[in-house]
Amino acid sequence: MRFRASVYVALKPAVNDPQGNAVMDGLHALGFESAANVRVGKYLTLELDADDQAAAKRQAESMCDRLLANPVIETYTVEVAAAE
Amino acid sequence: MRFRASVYVALKPAVNDPQGNAVMDGLHALGFESAANVRVGKYLTLELDADDQAAAKRQAESMCDRLLANPVIETYTVEVAAAE
Repeated sequence: MRFRASVYVALKPAVNDPQGNAVMDGLHALGFESAANVRVGKYLTLELDADDQAAAKRQAESMCDRLLANPVIETYTVEVAAAE
Repeated sequence: MRFRASVYVALKPAVNDPQGNAVMDGLHALGFESAANVRVGKYLTLELDADDQAAAKRQAESMCDRLLANPVIETYTVEVAAAE
């Protein structure tokens, strides 16, 4: 069966995020003065084959552990749904 | 009121995604042979002040239009929830 996975990778809260700080400065310069705590992560989508939804999720999590996320500084969340 | 916004920025389907292709090649090399259609986008989280949830969402969408996303090649989705 074909599945579509959405993967959200975010820096752990304790990790400094210079890109997020740069975006926050940009938002302030545009007048969004209340913007704070801006963090920039990755949002990946992909398709994969698996026997069922649980297997698809396990496979996507394995992809995260091995390639898509750096477990030392990042956390990830995976959502899986049947591909149309 | 304080709100927390999650912003998902993805390349439009017609736009070539070399980073996604590189990730797909990496997944194939690791044995995830069924991985396809890999697309890499951005996942931003931030906090902002607004009167209510609808206003917070409008403000976050305005941030996307003006800074966080490139409307020529990217689409975005915004989710807003009250900050704890």
